Amino acid sequence: MKREVLKELPLSAAALTGGMLQEYQQLLVEEMLPYQIEILEQGGALDMIRRAAGYRVPERTEPGRPTDVGKLLEATAYALLLREDPALKRKLEELIGLLEQAQYADGYLHPIMQASRPSDRFLSLLMSHEMYTLGHYMEGLLACYEALGNEQALRCARGIGDCLCQWFGTEPGKIRGYDGHPEVELALYRLYGCTGEKKYLECLRFFVEERGRSGPEHPHYFDWEQQRNREKFGKPVLGELSRWADRHRPYWGNYEYFQAHLPARQLREPTGHAVRATYFYCGMADLAMETGDEELMEACRSLWQGFEQGNVALNGSIGQDGFWEGIGRAYDLPPDYSYNETCAAIGLFLFGHRMMRLEPDGAYGDQMELSLYNTVLAGTSLDGRHYFYCNPLEVWPHSLYRYDKIHIQARRYEWDDCPCCPPNEARLLGELGRFAVLSGRQEAWVNLYTGLRCTLPLDSGPVRMEMVTEYPREGRIRITVLDSARFTLRLRIPAWCREWRLLLNGERTPAAAEKGFAALERSWQPGDCAVLELEMPCRRVYADPRAYHLAHQTAVMRGPLLYCAEQADNGELLSRILLPDSSVLEEHWEEDLLGGVYTVTAEARRAMLQEGPLYRAGPPAWEKMQLKLVPYYTWANREEGEMRVFFPEIRTGL
Amino acid sequence: MKREVLKELPLSAAALTGGMLQEYQQLLVEEMLPYQIEILEQGGALDMIRRAAGYRVPERTEPGRPTDVGKLLEATAYALLLREDPALKRKLEELIGLLEQAQYADGYLHPIMQASRPSDRFLSLLMSHEMYTLGHYMEGLLACYEALGNEQALRCARGIGDCLCQWFGTEPGKIRGYDGHPEVELALYRLYGCTGEKKYLECLRFFVEERGRSGPEHPHYFDWEQQRNREKFGKPVLGELSRWADRHRPYWGNYEYFQAHLPARQLREPTGHAVRATYFYCGMADLAMETGDEELMEACRSLWQGFEQGNVALNGSIGQDGFWEGIGRAYDLPPDYSYNETCAAIGLFLFGHRMMRLEPDGAYGDQMELSLYNTVLAGTSLDGRHYFYCNPLEVWPHSLYRYDKIHIQARRYEWDDCPCCPPNEARLLGELGRFAVLSGRQEAWVNLYTGLRCTLPLDSGPVRMEMVTEYPREGRIRITVLDSARFTLRLRIPAWCREWRLLLNGERTPAAAEKGFAALERSWQPGDCAVLELEMPCRRVYADPRAYHLAHQTAVMRGPLLYCAEQADNGELLSRILLPDSSVLEEHWEEDLLGGVYTVTAEARRAMLQEGPLYRAGPPAWEKMQLKLVPYYTWANREEGEMRVFFPEIRTGL
Repeated sequence: MKREVLKELPLSAAALTGGMLQEYQQLLVEEMLPYQIEILEQGGALDMIRRAAGYRVPERTEPGRPTDVGKLLEATAYALLLREDPALKRKLEELIGLLEQAQYADGYLHPIMQASRPSDRFLSLLMSHEMYTLGHYMEGLLACYEALGNEQALRCARGIGDCLCQWFGTEPGKIRGYDGHPEVELALYRLYGCTGEKKYLECLRFFVEERGRSGPEHPHYFDWEQQRNREKFGKPVLGELSRWADRHRPYWGNYEYFQAHLPARQLREPTGHAVRATYFYCGMADLAMETGDEELMEACRSLWQGFEQGNVALNGSIGQDGFWEGIGRAYDLPPDYSYNETCAAIGLFLFGHRMMRLEPDGAYGDQMELSLYNTVLAGTSLDGRHYFYCNPLEVWPHSLYRYDKIHIQARRYEWDDCPCCPPNEARLLGELGRFAVLSGRQEAWVNLYTGLRCTLPLDSGPVRMEMVTEYPREGRIRITVLDSARFTLRLRIPAWCREWRLLLNGERTPAAAEKGFAALERSWQPGDCAVLELEMPCRRVYADPRAYHLAHQTAVMRGPLLYCAEQADNGELLSRILLPDSSVLEEHWEEDLLGGVYTVTAEARRAMLQEGPLYRAGPPAWEKMQLKLVPYYTWANREEGEMRVFFPEIRTGL
Repeated sequence: MKREVLKELPLSAAALTGGMLQEYQQLLVEEMLPYQIEILEQGGALDMIRRAAGYRVPERTEPGRPTDVGKLLEATAYALLLREDPALKRKLEELIGLLEQAQYADGYLHPIMQASRPSDRFLSLLMSHEMYTLGHYMEGLLACYEALGNEQALRCARGIGDCLCQWFGTEPGKIRGYDGHPEVELALYRLYGCTGEKKYLECLRFFVEERGRSGPEHPHYFDWEQQRNREKFGKPVLGELSRWADRHRPYWGNYEYFQAHLPARQLREPTGHAVRATYFYCGMADLAMETGDEELMEACRSLWQGFEQGNVALNGSIGQDGFWEGIGRAYDLPPDYSYNETCAAIGLFLFGHRMMRLEPDGAYGDQMELSLYNTVLAGTSLDGRHYFYCNPLEVWPHSLYRYDKIHIQARRYEWDDCPCCPPNEARLLGELGRFAVLSGRQEAWVNLYTGLRCTLPLDSGPVRMEMVTEYPREGRIRITVLDSARFTLRLRIPAWCREWRLLLNGERTPAAAEKGFAALERSWQPGDCAVLELEMPCRRVYADPRAYHLAHQTAVMRGPLLYCAEQADNGELLSRILLPDSSVLEEHWEEDLLGGVYTVTAEARRAMLQEGPLYRAGPPAWEKMQLKLVPYYTWANREEGEMRVFFPEIRTGL
């Protein structure tokens, strides 16, 4: 039975119109997308599609990675909604044409496999990312259909879906397997949403339910696959391609890395590779949304709480283990080692969005905005052309020679061997409108605050609404309803906000927050205006004392924005700095700094450098200093140097 | 020209008679040595020697590692000086006989190579540890000669030396190479010392001078070797055996890992694999000792200062990088990650001993005793049958699932795949007498304080001396001269000691410390007694603020002993504990704890655990607690748990 859930607004019905997120959408259109398309073209990823479509293109020694074409297809579709660009649209349509030309008759479409191993199919689900790639192609094509109405793209996506339905399932002759990297689950649900065809939902159900199952007469698929490949080929197929294999191995034993150690509905604690995990949990949530399955829902809830209670870094990302990009043990949150991959934060954001739709609660939105502002945005430089894969909370460049720091960087890269994050950010930025406001039967749930114009598909009929705000720079949000209708406007009150007020047509309206949302139920008239004022003084944040590495330390936030100190403002050896608990945090608008930011200053103490032996009889002298913090999302946009989020706090007046 | 240096006392002329170090010698004789010999026997290491000697022994699938037989040979020889044991002596003589039987006519003796690759020799110096093994066999055999007068052992060691002289050198037809793991340098110098034969010294000179050299017509040996092996065998030889290869590779580029990136006399900063480094620097110091070469001496001095100024952990060990067991960058001293291998501390101790002989200075002795008491002893459990390879300053077992913690253990192992440390500790403990007192022409330099009876080979003739002390448990050292002679008694005044006094035959004698030694020059009469009283209240120690990870923290020491907190005494989550600067450190003798130790207590504060979200608006409440510290060398002898050396210090009265 389908569960009653909040509806997403169609992309065409929710357009960002101002504020910081829209600035990033502009950056997407103007910088990120052209740059990334150019990289894919130069790298040969598009040539590989041309070759798969039958065209003769020059051979390259390094064929490029077409894996991320799917994500860029998606981002391009969204970008064309944001700004008309006939040349880009032609290029996109040409690409869709090439993909349809390349697609096999049964729907299979994976240019790199078609070019390099045309006769192999689904031989190494454990490591090949084969369906992960198919999933991203599907999502990209479906975005072209959703955003631009491109029927050819829909046909092409359907073909892939049909191919999967034909190859996978419990019926005799089908493969009872699933991909080592979940993603196709999200694509199948999206295809079901676009077509209404049950078979795609059933295919999703199969992938969710089959994962991690085994029994006496039904070996674990990954065991079976590896055994089959050893017998058939004398070695693992494709598995040996992974340069990470040695590092991952310790975690492979029971396939926890792949979320395949238990059947989905038995999962309770988030574990394994962080991106794989969040994507699979999204698939579980999608299925729960469609089926109303309470057991699956309970698993999703428990997994979410696991993240929230012990595994999310303060910048809203996850994956404490730097070597296997994996979710660590609860409360093990080393600020200088955690992986905090940009894609993992995107995965958490997408999972939170689904949980929000399933059972609206401000806690989901709170976490989503932390991930969005403090990791997704931090993943891109202010020029849109440099990217972070990992987003640690502390970087001491002097130590980066160490092998345990191999994933940590003090400078964003221009591109990477594994360029999964940049196009993932691009597509997420492109579709932000989808996440801002959700619709109940007769309710509008405002989850993310941004300049926005949208149309709510209420039961009583469409209602247009406008939101104007400079959030998260300022805490004032003005919402104007443009049509008459009786409905409840629900506004998320972030848990970090201690004081807020709601005004209706200029008059203060009493309202209490319930499950993180304040509600205004009334018959709205065109022009009615609600204003939410969230107080957002900069504040100190502390971790649960079980978080070993963060004990006795404090970080600074302002609204949803996390702050950090950079060497550029504070000199070297940031670990020398202490923050007295009595120091006042002061904010300053700096128009010309880092694209315009509020900086925060506080009087701090710093251990002075004094010549002497390595170990000494007395503590160093302290000097007063002005600590200056900038929003974390803007770090590493100046000269390379140290960065630090948490500072030891001195308690005065003991 | 031979440099005038302090003389070592022959082993037979310096016997430990009491105190803590002698307790460890008893542990060596009673527990460590029988246990380790049994392990080598069980593991098949001795069988491999029997097989090499021509005996038929059962084949084993896992042939054991005979590499460490050399070290145990050495330890056994010393043990037989400490306590007569006819059965053990027979066993040792039998082993020496087997080795001589196994030795090839040209002197080559390496049972594992002889058994597994009889026709290969010196093919992969980069990775094979082949000469490292030969070196340890030589040292073991020479110890049997030095301690027991076994001429067969000397013959056998000479044979190995002759083999090396024949194979290596700059002459045409000889190999211009050197081992990837230095050690043979020390053995050659020892062989030179036992025989007086110049050719062994020349061979040492070759190995020291040739290392790291390259030029247009003289490629770097390791480059040449790898190229030759690829051409000859199509792959690296033996190199692929290293399970660490992948981790090391980043540091191999210029052979810095192997101290072969520069010629020895150009070395200034200690770098590379910590054990390899210290062993090679020992070889350099040995050569400098013999040749009076000032340039080489300057290099040694600079390398030592490099360690002392930025790379030694507070427990006297080195090697900050956990993955390649390597020396890190200065001031990068992560307490929870540093490798601090037991063998590396031994290497540093041996290097310090040579520097002390070359240019006597208390700083060398200070560092030697830190390494000895806080790493070498910590490397062994109180039962003598469990060992640490790594000696970090902080262990949080909850985090040990992480791959970057793969080398960190919270419990000593019974044995290990790479059992280099236990027999290395065994041999060092066995020869401690060698390091306590050094002899000048007419001077006695007391460098380590321990119960001791020794005979000084002064120019004027032998002088017997007795030392009685419970150091480092107590700071009182009584030295009695038993023969008449005019000479200067020099006593090391540790830099940590703020107050000390010297008494001669019961009367206070004014004396100043110069270069870390107080001097008493007089005509000594039999029975004359000097007493040194070192005040050793427990004290706080602080690191240079450039040591990023140790900022704002303090550790506790008492005399040369480092202290730590264990979970057994202080509960879990030691990172929650703060130490106010005003807290008094109190010491308590606990006879029944950990073999009898002074414990230290102090009133501390601890963040209380309170339910709540992972990140919070306010800091945790603090509770008072009694922090209890035990000597670091005794940690991990009770139930497994956390351990921590450094604690954040709160400054009160700001």
